[in-house]
Amino acid sequence: MKQSMMFIPTLREVPADADVKSHQLLLRAGFIRQNSAGVYTFLPLGKKVLQKVEQIVREEMDRAGAVEMFMPALQLAELWQESGRWYSYGPEMMRVKDRHNRDFAMGPTHEEMITSLVRDEVNSYKKLPLTLYQIQTKFRDEKRPRFGLLRGKEFIMKDAYSFHSSFESLDDVYEKLYEAYSNVFSRCGLNFRAVIADSGAMGGKDTHEFMVLSEIGEDTIAYSDSSSYAANVEMAPVITTYEKSQSSQDELQKLDTPGQKSIEEVSTFLSVSPEQCLKSIMFKVDDQFVLVVVRGDHEINDVKIKNIFNASVVELATAEETKTTLGPVGSLGPINVPGSLKIIADHAVQYIVNGVCGANVEGVHFTGVNPDRDIENVQYEDVRFIIEGDPSPDGKGTIVFAKGIEVGHVFKLGTRYSEAMNATFLDENGKSKPMIMGCYGIGVSRTVAAIAEQFNDENGLVWPQAVSPFDLHLIVVNPKQDDQKGLADELYTILNDKFEVLYDDRQERPGVKFADSDLMGLPIRITVGKKAGEGVIELKVRSTGEVLEITTENLIETIEKYIVK
Amino acid sequence: MKQSMMFIPTLREVPADADVKSHQLLLRAGFIRQNSAGVYTFLPLGKKVLQKVEQIVREEMDRAGAVEMFMPALQLAELWQESGRWYSYGPEMMRVKDRHNRDFAMGPTHEEMITSLVRDEVNSYKKLPLTLYQIQTKFRDEKRPRFGLLRGKEFIMKDAYSFHSSFESLDDVYEKLYEAYSNVFSRCGLNFRAVIADSGAMGGKDTHEFMVLSEIGEDTIAYSDSSSYAANVEMAPVITTYEKSQSSQDELQKLDTPGQKSIEEVSTFLSVSPEQCLKSIMFKVDDQFVLVVVRGDHEINDVKIKNIFNASVVELATAEETKTTLGPVGSLGPINVPGSLKIIADHAVQYIVNGVCGANVEGVHFTGVNPDRDIENVQYEDVRFIIEGDPSPDGKGTIVFAKGIEVGHVFKLGTRYSEAMNATFLDENGKSKPMIMGCYGIGVSRTVAAIAEQFNDENGLVWPQAVSPFDLHLIVVNPKQDDQKGLADELYTILNDKFEVLYDDRQERPGVKFADSDLMGLPIRITVGKKAGEGVIELKVRSTGEVLEITTENLIETIEKYIVK
Repeated sequence: MKQSMMFIPTLREVPADADVKSHQLLLRAGFIRQNSAGVYTFLPLGKKVLQKVEQIVREEMDRAGAVEMFMPALQLAELWQESGRWYSYGPEMMRVKDRHNRDFAMGPTHEEMITSLVRDEVNSYKKLPLTLYQIQTKFRDEKRPRFGLLRGKEFIMKDAYSFHSSFESLDDVYEKLYEAYSNVFSRCGLNFRAVIADSGAMGGKDTHEFMVLSEIGEDTIAYSDSSSYAANVEMAPVITTYEKSQSSQDELQKLDTPGQKSIEEVSTFLSVSPEQCLKSIMFKVDDQFVLVVVRGDHEINDVKIKNIFNASVVELATAEETKTTLGPVGSLGPINVPGSLKIIADHAVQYIVNGVCGANVEGVHFTGVNPDRDIENVQYEDVRFIIEGDPSPDGKGTIVFAKGIEVGHVFKLGTRYSEAMNATFLDENGKSKPMIMGCYGIGVSRTVAAIAEQFNDENGLVWPQAVSPFDLHLIVVNPKQDDQKGLADELYTILNDKFEVLYDDRQERPGVKFADSDLMGLPIRITVGKKAGEGVIELKVRSTGEVLEITTENLIETIEKYIVK
Repeated sequence: MKQSMMFIPTLREVPADADVKSHQLLLRAGFIRQNSAGVYTFLPLGKKVLQKVEQIVREEMDRAGAVEMFMPALQLAELWQESGRWYSYGPEMMRVKDRHNRDFAMGPTHEEMITSLVRDEVNSYKKLPLTLYQIQTKFRDEKRPRFGLLRGKEFIMKDAYSFHSSFESLDDVYEKLYEAYSNVFSRCGLNFRAVIADSGAMGGKDTHEFMVLSEIGEDTIAYSDSSSYAANVEMAPVITTYEKSQSSQDELQKLDTPGQKSIEEVSTFLSVSPEQCLKSIMFKVDDQFVLVVVRGDHEINDVKIKNIFNASVVELATAEETKTTLGPVGSLGPINVPGSLKIIADHAVQYIVNGVCGANVEGVHFTGVNPDRDIENVQYEDVRFIIEGDPSPDGKGTIVFAKGIEVGHVFKLGTRYSEAMNATFLDENGKSKPMIMGCYGIGVSRTVAAIAEQFNDENGLVWPQAVSPFDLHLIVVNPKQDDQKGLADELYTILNDKFEVLYDDRQERPGVKFADSDLMGLPIRITVGKKAGEGVIELKVRSTGEVLEITTENLIETIEKYIVK
């Protein structure tokens, strides 16, 4: 492709409202443009990367036995009313009326639509399993779209749905798609981890998120430094042993601690370490108040509280509710608590010797707290967040943290939608059962941004070959010089047969051409300059900066060392 | 692909609400399903055809020098306010508000968005011309969606836009894309014509529609029986010579014709042919009344009136307005008309001898009308619709009519959008000028339906190879017979290397398999049945019904006679 015919508007300045590298560079290198908040155009270079990622997704999905189809964006409200999500989805779902005043959702996802399609056509176990996918535009009206393609209002997603007559069949397809996802992100060149995730409100069981490691990620991943274990930080169990200090137990004593509320304040005031303190916080678990206690240096993980109680909603009690139930916020503690109040304490608490906790009276704390002796009616559980340095839950190595960008999600839905929408089949015995479902998403446009986020340097983007818009950037330094122009034109024809070539034939200064070329970040640059007359040209490898001066005779075999077609 | 893994729900019955063949068969053969009026899902087979058509479009657009990009569906209202179309587009444009109450159009087309993108990035003639395209989902809230994919509310379109610094450059790209469109529809196997069309409200100049010939088409095409001339019927000029009868001219006479109004009534009452009658109708052309006269057997073409007067609006005068201006509807005529009233008559009228026309008095007509003698202040123009039998306007052959489905449209927009939206460039002399634009559309999903409409028989669809979802349908008659199953499995592996194969491995009765196969309409069917043990199989050509019994050794070379890869 001749660059003069393409539309690649590059920018010298960093756009003011672009906070992250991928957003800045995709704008500057002319891959995308913003149309409105969270809504982007893929310019020709961006579209090429998008297509390459789509093609990789397609190949891996097909290989895993999934079948492509294409559903519309406009979805009748009635479908979403059947599942109940018309009411629960909230303002993230864009809604539109047609000229006959019928309500439609602009599909943020397609569980309802696919379930209704399969329900209407499949009624026997003989036609299951079925795994269907599409690559399609989705609409989600984010409160605060940001980071360019990473969190948009209109974006491109691959969504897949599987239908089964048994959980074994679901497990089988789940595993195949997990594998397919790993292949997709590996082929894109990404440094990623498959992470155990929260099945949350979806009500399913197994679920993994595929996270691209990046400082700008909005999720924290806890992973082992010496195994493949990785989990969203809120999902990682703490499996550890604590040691009790051998100090003798002091007496329980009340001390005035006027104005000292936080762990930091209390521990400084009493000259004890945060590890010696008990952090006590009142929660409302569905309609019940629960006092949760962790060690002063630990944080409470409310997903774990939710799971312990199998609760729908877990939230902090208000200051008012806390005071009425037990005592003032900042002076709470688990000693001498009414029997009716449930106390959950983290395992680490049990091993504190001569600790400190609030006395449920404003400005008063206990010292000499020894939980086994002093706390009654307590239930010890794993309720804290895992921290760096904890042992990995799989028993192999130590936990370290990383930030991640979620690019994929595989999810065992179970019968959440098939039951609500009456998608049933007849089993071998003629008995009607709800279909068992899985759903599987890849943020395709987000993956493009994640690649840009991982592959760049101070001069611009550095595309991995598999997803680069072109393999080669052919540059003629001075197209007004006949020998340069002649050789470059000739090489363009020859190289175009074997590689995807972007040919910078523009009448621009060499400095502009080289700067644009670095910004765009194609894997190999071929420069035809002053030595064109001698048949000598320059090859530069974008990722390493390696520069070779070669003759035209060796050109193709040299390129083939770097570019595998 | 194994059929058991695909989702191909076929129907035995013709769906009640499907009026046309393509709609019926695409539903019955499991290619599409309706989600709501005018909104369809492409099931796996339908998606495959769609992808093949898209790929053909892509290849031909690329070859013509156009560059692919991808714009969003959500378009800020402000853009449409700049062009004025936010107010003029009407209810066909779907509009949606986001959570911050901002107005968006759900793109029915992208002139505004592309013009704003190019305006913001291109400012010199050096960066022109530029031809950009996308294949994307469009939304148009049709009053009455119908005919399945032919007129939908959500559909897939290829839209292209070109930007130029001169009209010569526009002409050049227009011609290239005209050629590309011809190639696209030829490769899809379609019987089509490129037709001169009405530039209508768009204000442009040249425009052609690509029409697939079909009885269910909503447009009438007038084309030459012996040249490539073809035009939308309203656009075809009448270039013909009339002969005057040699009869002597009678005297003008008033006759009572009580209750006789239509040409049919008057000609029957007076025993003259419709050709002898003058049909006079009052129009309002912008704010001026005009009496338009054609021969009784001809119809008035108001596009021609509009062009004669270079008018914005041409409409029939009301009965009331007609009466006040001249006389009662049904008794109008061009004789003794006030000099202030403009009269336009078709050329054919001038050649009438001893004709009949209304006398502008209720129930009274003139006979013995001889226009040159009796009609004053008349201007003779081409104002009638062309009819079958007229000479072709290019002087070659005779006009015949056909119905057409519009699948493509190329259009010289000129500066309609660039002026309204201030998309300018600096020319060679540093002078600022509005960019000159073209736009070019292909209804991609509509093309799929148009192909289905042209290629079917009483048993189902008959896909041309280039757009068929698969090349071959491999059928094992009885998969429970080991020799049949074994041979079919083996052939599947072998054939899959060279062709795209759909393998019907289902446990279904042979009758069901064959009926489904005919419905789906893949070009070649390979049947493995009772003679599997002898290595003998059957090859059937879907389009001709030709059946060959062949041995497995000859299989590939026999298939290659029909399928060109």
